Amino acid sequence: MKEVFGYIEEDEKRFIEELKQLVAQPSISSYDQGVKECALLLKEMMERSGIEARIIETPGQPIVYGETGPQGAPLTMLIYGHYDVQPPEPLDLWETPPFEPTVRNNRLYGRGTADNKGQLYAHVKATEAYLKTKGAVPIRLKFIFEGEEEILSPNLEGFARANKELLSSDVVYIADGPGHESLKPTLFFGCRGIVYMELRAKGAKMDYHSGNKGGVLPNPAWDLVHALATMKDGEDHVLIEGFYDRVRASSEIEKRALSEIPYDEKAVLSDLKIGSIAGSKDYGYYEKLLMRPTLTIDGFQSGFTGRGMKTIIPSEAMVKLESRLVPDQNPDEVVEGVKRHLLKKGFGHIEVKVLTKAAPSRTPMDHPFAQKVIRSIEEVHGISPILYPSSGGTLPSYVFTEIMGLPTFWVPYGQNDIQNHAPNENIRLDFYLNGIKTTAALIRFAAQ
Amino acid sequence: MKEVFGYIEEDEKRFIEELKQLVAQPSISSYDQGVKECALLLKEMMERSGIEARIIETPGQPIVYGETGPQGAPLTMLIYGHYDVQPPEPLDLWETPPFEPTVRNNRLYGRGTADNKGQLYAHVKATEAYLKTKGAVPIRLKFIFEGEEEILSPNLEGFARANKELLSSDVVYIADGPGHESLKPTLFFGCRGIVYMELRAKGAKMDYHSGNKGGVLPNPAWDLVHALATMKDGEDHVLIEGFYDRVRASSEIEKRALSEIPYDEKAVLSDLKIGSIAGSKDYGYYEKLLMRPTLTIDGFQSGFTGRGMKTIIPSEAMVKLESRLVPDQNPDEVVEGVKRHLLKKGFGHIEVKVLTKAAPSRTPMDHPFAQKVIRSIEEVHGISPILYPSSGGTLPSYVFTEIMGLPTFWVPYGQNDIQNHAPNENIRLDFYLNGIKTTAALIRFAAQ
Repeated sequence: MKEVFGYIEEDEKRFIEELKQLVAQPSISSYDQGVKECALLLKEMMERSGIEARIIETPGQPIVYGETGPQGAPLTMLIYGHYDVQPPEPLDLWETPPFEPTVRNNRLYGRGTADNKGQLYAHVKATEAYLKTKGAVPIRLKFIFEGEEEILSPNLEGFARANKELLSSDVVYIADGPGHESLKPTLFFGCRGIVYMELRAKGAKMDYHSGNKGGVLPNPAWDLVHALATMKDGEDHVLIEGFYDRVRASSEIEKRALSEIPYDEKAVLSDLKIGSIAGSKDYGYYEKLLMRPTLTIDGFQSGFTGRGMKTIIPSEAMVKLESRLVPDQNPDEVVEGVKRHLLKKGFGHIEVKVLTKAAPSRTPMDHPFAQKVIRSIEEVHGISPILYPSSGGTLPSYVFTEIMGLPTFWVPYGQNDIQNHAPNENIRLDFYLNGIKTTAALIRFAAQ
Repeated sequence: MKEVFGYIEEDEKRFIEELKQLVAQPSISSYDQGVKECALLLKEMMERSGIEARIIETPGQPIVYGETGPQGAPLTMLIYGHYDVQPPEPLDLWETPPFEPTVRNNRLYGRGTADNKGQLYAHVKATEAYLKTKGAVPIRLKFIFEGEEEILSPNLEGFARANKELLSSDVVYIADGPGHESLKPTLFFGCRGIVYMELRAKGAKMDYHSGNKGGVLPNPAWDLVHALATMKDGEDHVLIEGFYDRVRASSEIEKRALSEIPYDEKAVLSDLKIGSIAGSKDYGYYEKLLMRPTLTIDGFQSGFTGRGMKTIIPSEAMVKLESRLVPDQNPDEVVEGVKRHLLKKGFGHIEVKVLTKAAPSRTPMDHPFAQKVIRSIEEVHGISPILYPSSGGTLPSYVFTEIMGLPTFWVPYGQNDIQNHAPNENIRLDFYLNGIKTTAALIRFAAQ
């Protein structure tokens, strides 16, 4: 790897300048701002790096697709990333403008530096380094960079279903997200899924004065409170029939990995300023966070909530209710379960609207390719990664594991405090460089 | 009454002009805007009407106090009203400016025209009419006009306790509020009390991403939902121990009155756009609204409640919880009951803050003075009033009935759609005139 790593170190400054160029092009999918321009720019930058690239249209934002490496290679690796970014607001909290990338304190600041342009571009630069030093990569590489991850990838599943042959591969590799607080490298074997719902109870046609109607007017806030209380008990146990039926028990190897994730309960409690960890005592912290489903109230709104008093009976109550899912739960089944539960408990009149859903995703930890990813990380960092059987959050990886049936490995190239989705997003330059090296190493070890 | 009524009819235009002058002086207690100026103006207007008036300071806004009539009169009647008004906002919904009173369609528009300046001033003009035509009033009249009703009379109870002799009377009379939809006159014998609380549950020090913490972080929204669900069942029955213990059963005369209040369930359901009336089937509409206590969620706020999604575990949840009280419930006991209940059910960590409280108030319907009020109304309207054993809303009448031990009678002089607390507040001129006549008639009949 010496030669490839040497090239990377030598060209580091240029790699940073190119990333700046990519970040300077806004690509805010929420606002449909600059996304298509960014796709074009990325395609050109991939081409300049030696990758055959093209734009493929979808019903939403374009996918930038790339290929390189021999057709008859022993292995095909599909690399997924996204070139769209979160909106930059609130602007006044940025120390330098979000789309004027700036280096400070060994970090590159700007919207998308870490999420996900910097991590995505590390793959591109690793490929370039390999091509320029060795003439060719030893595996077949495919790149799928989408422009709608920040709006929850509404077209990725459809694209995968419609382009099976184009995307056909042996493994999927992703670099995304922040790393561990210890700054140790990490490797994820999956992620939880999600269903995000809005439940709405309705009362009278408008708010009424509680003096004029209190005692005779139905109150949708009480209605929703009572409905919710039937859905979960005080010990965080979901009471919806069948909710846990399809939850896969952690395997022995997963259990061991969970027990090896660094965990300091005292530090967690003091950091979060809480008295105790929530949920059942039957599961440990990381088992609850990664391997168990949740039912979370993300928001509740009804009636008057300003300062002081307004004496009203609200006309409506709304809750944002989210469920993180684990294999083999199915988002549609969970929604049906919620609806059936409400009906059974006498709350069939409460409206259930699904805002988004994504299936959970899990790759077996004993998949042989895992050792190649681990070896690549060790090659760059000199230490073994922390192994996560799953993340607590959600990526669209189910498209790869569930729809395409591919083992999927996910390594964050950003440090822990990348400030993704927040002002002053940044990536540490050494992490960016290590990311490039990690992909380069993986390209080599994948062929062995 | 002919001579007195004749004077009132003859001077109607002037009475309207004077009311305009009083309304034109803003007196917004919430903003402490113009209240003291209005007190001074009212005092002068009372003096010009022949009432001995003076300003009495309180820790808050001044009370305008007035007297007239012989010391040794057979009866002393204390008239209560308030000269402060609600804030006028939202200003852009007013057809004419709130403090430029304007006559349109036989109504006087302006902030305070009905609530309560027009109704308060009716007493002043009735007294003037009596004094100018008869030389003196046949009873002793005392006036207590406060400037803090719209901010919930924080100093009225203290004032009453500190000025027992000054206020000593046989009965209390109040004109306030909107009348019945049928436009028939009404007479109220009491009102419900209130306790308005804010309950707050706290979680971690800030909102956290549900992907990073979902399943391990305590969720204060769930906490509050579970706490609330233990406080009331799905049939509107409050489950707080002892909550109903001191609820006085309706007397026979009150039950009869309740049954005689015009009620058309179909019209109510269709007007409110609801499928059924809330609450226990054991009580009728007006019994639930006037004679039974409530526990109402006025507002609930937690986490993200905007459009779309934000995947967070909220750091806090807050509910505005209001209880309307009936005799002989005590606001402090109800608060203690709530706190004890939370503690017993394992929610002792939920913060309870009392924003306001007022005891309920009730005067026996068979009190002999009621017949004098009824006779005055009949004299003016030619029909008998609808009798309400109580109102559903809250006035500070407990100060008179509970603290001072005086029977209190309350007659709205405004029509049903006075738009109190809303833009385009107004009083129908014929209702204003009838109000003046009603007080004048009561001054006469009270002496008999």
